[in-house]
Amino acid sequence: MVARNSHLEKLKGTYLFSQIDSYKKKLLDKDPSIQLISLGTGDTSEPITPHITQAMVTECQRLGTLEGYRGYGPDFGLPQLRKKISDVHYKGLVDPEDIYVSDGAGCDIARWQMLFGAQHTLAVQDPSYPAYVDNGVIMGQTGTFDADKKIYKKIVPLAMRPDNNFFCDLSTIEKTDIIALCSPNNPTGTTLNREQFQQLVDFAKSNQSIILYDAVYTPFIRDKSIPQSIYEIPGAKEVAIECHSFSKSAGFTGVRLGWSVVPKELKYDDGTPVYPDWQRISTTSFNGASLISQAGGLAALDEKGLQETKAQVDHYLMNAKILRDTLSGLGFTIYGGENAPYLWLHFPKADYPGLTSWDIFEDILNRSHVVTIPGSGFGPAGENFIRLSAFGHRQKILDAAKRLKNWAETSPLNLQATASK
Amino acid sequence: MVARNSHLEKLKGTYLFSQIDSYKKKLLDKDPSIQLISLGTGDTSEPITPHITQAMVTECQRLGTLEGYRGYGPDFGLPQLRKKISDVHYKGLVDPEDIYVSDGAGCDIARWQMLFGAQHTLAVQDPSYPAYVDNGVIMGQTGTFDADKKIYKKIVPLAMRPDNNFFCDLSTIEKTDIIALCSPNNPTGTTLNREQFQQLVDFAKSNQSIILYDAVYTPFIRDKSIPQSIYEIPGAKEVAIECHSFSKSAGFTGVRLGWSVVPKELKYDDGTPVYPDWQRISTTSFNGASLISQAGGLAALDEKGLQETKAQVDHYLMNAKILRDTLSGLGFTIYGGENAPYLWLHFPKADYPGLTSWDIFEDILNRSHVVTIPGSGFGPAGENFIRLSAFGHRQKILDAAKRLKNWAETSPLNLQATASK
Repeated sequence: MVARNSHLEKLKGTYLFSQIDSYKKKLLDKDPSIQLISLGTGDTSEPITPHITQAMVTECQRLGTLEGYRGYGPDFGLPQLRKKISDVHYKGLVDPEDIYVSDGAGCDIARWQMLFGAQHTLAVQDPSYPAYVDNGVIMGQTGTFDADKKIYKKIVPLAMRPDNNFFCDLSTIEKTDIIALCSPNNPTGTTLNREQFQQLVDFAKSNQSIILYDAVYTPFIRDKSIPQSIYEIPGAKEVAIECHSFSKSAGFTGVRLGWSVVPKELKYDDGTPVYPDWQRISTTSFNGASLISQAGGLAALDEKGLQETKAQVDHYLMNAKILRDTLSGLGFTIYGGENAPYLWLHFPKADYPGLTSWDIFEDILNRSHVVTIPGSGFGPAGENFIRLSAFGHRQKILDAAKRLKNWAETSPLNLQATASK
Repeated sequence: MVARNSHLEKLKGTYLFSQIDSYKKKLLDKDPSIQLISLGTGDTSEPITPHITQAMVTECQRLGTLEGYRGYGPDFGLPQLRKKISDVHYKGLVDPEDIYVSDGAGCDIARWQMLFGAQHTLAVQDPSYPAYVDNGVIMGQTGTFDADKKIYKKIVPLAMRPDNNFFCDLSTIEKTDIIALCSPNNPTGTTLNREQFQQLVDFAKSNQSIILYDAVYTPFIRDKSIPQSIYEIPGAKEVAIECHSFSKSAGFTGVRLGWSVVPKELKYDDGTPVYPDWQRISTTSFNGASLISQAGGLAALDEKGLQETKAQVDHYLMNAKILRDTLSGLGFTIYGGENAPYLWLHFPKADYPGLTSWDIFEDILNRSHVVTIPGSGFGPAGENFIRLSAFGHRQKILDAAKRLKNWAETSPLNLQATASK
């Protein structure tokens, strides 16, 4: 039979979530009555809001009529949606023609990697959401996995740690073709400020790199000094692609809608623009987002839709605040959760000697029955951290906060650490 | 800046549709009052049926409630949909675990090419729907375009012509890793019979190839002797992937829903199964089809949904019969349209000396104002053919038939051909 694609052979197993599941299983096998609370996956929990729901209902009904039916949507998405994203989301900063509607940022990232192909080199934040790396492996950009360094050999890591203010010193970083990054970040919940964005754009320009900027968590930004789009930074249009999504702000994780921005100004080294290749890739490998989802997206950008989705994001941010205040109050060092739905809880080596983030994860799980994610699952620089997700109904978050408080006050791990301070 | 992906440089322009558009524009510039009728693109025209519409409305409303909301759908699609496709569509022939719900066959074909990667060789029907070739080019499987042969150098064409009963002699075909094919075929509208399918499966087995079978037009099969799935053929599970879609049967071209079947029995040369790689590709590069579309798919497989969609396919098949009867009655040789929504009209070289399918296309367009597709746009073996699509409202098809009759009776091209017979 056919040989396996050699790039797929390099791909590490989906170790993280199956490992988490095996710990959960071990616990529930011992006591099936345990009610776990998950602060693990970053999945939305609140219903789609009335204005958006109604728009999708109306679109379904319209598709059921002779006059209202249409087949394939237009290439690149409904023109009125592209225009509305430009007007409302970008306030005209981005041309509607540069906006390509898709079924989500995760799917677009894979299409971007398909566009770049095997010959390009890749820098990725460490820690990071696994898709940038995994799609890079599949496309042949990364080389094999280095088990000691816990990273693929050809990937250049951009370490994000408290000691570098979650933004690595770019002067120490070697040039790559592509720089993939996310801010507000998953998993750290931290954000780049305007100066850091500017440094990044300048770095990309001087290195002739393309930035693949994942902006899906920007609706969680409440600090007005933080850019909502990379295109607020002078020169960014010449070096950056921006991916975005309705998933987290409008609860569209299961409805599927997002977009990519490819500015006309973004060019290859031969001076030709990138966007015709993106148009070709996106029409060859994709047939558009559902028209029903696109109708929902249009409604989400109405005044009423914006009010509703802001309230929903506020709900998640209040969840984050509850968890953050609880854990800070217990003396923990915690990052993120102010302009992002993720909290990044630090268990410094000095205070928790010899313990990995898997050990901490397991202790929290077994003692409080709260599921978190060990930071090392997102990359080597995530070691000694735990990610908490603030998605969920309020009561669940309040219960989780209570359990975490109890865990902090009774866990031998934590008591030792506190005593040593 | 970054260099362009060398595979994308090889990709030929989307010449076909832009060329058709330029002919249309030339005509309309001369006389803007002309009302064109399109029998060109294969896009559905009839509204989504009531039972399916209602199911999607209900799902939208459910996602708007606290109790009914859910975020990300399960990996690989809703279990109840996978089970129903197995029970209703495959009558148990395919295990639900081997069925992966997607946003359409076109998108799955791109993901399959991503799975295979650059190292695999590809055989494709000639003529064929362009996606198999274009995705192969993007992934680096095809080499450069041979302008003389009008095909990419490394692609092995499987010529489909009247003189080989639209199924090439496999004994003359060199071994490839992947064999991409579609039956009922787009563009020819012809179907493989059971013996041809069996020959193909045996050929794949003896050559250790994987068949990528595109089954999206099988709902149009009315001849009970023709297989509805490749898995009806003994041994097919060891050599074939099947892609399918709700697009053409349920009018879901803009709603987006399909599936791939990856049998457990399908293995690489090292004896390991292919499906874990498919699971990895489909969860890394894709986040699932919209839950609303999936609710529609479930309804389409209800007894009521099946009745409704059968009636809709019958409508398109009656359209095809109207066009077929009209053109046959005028003495043309015509293929397809009996178990497919496409008709493949032959203008043999002997009768139309020196004329290409573009010449015929242009003459039909200019004299009858009916838009068709020149067969050579689908590959070199499509020369001397014209594709007609039977999608459309009945009145449009009746009008088009009348215009084509008038064209056939008055065009100098055609009168000469008739006289020479």
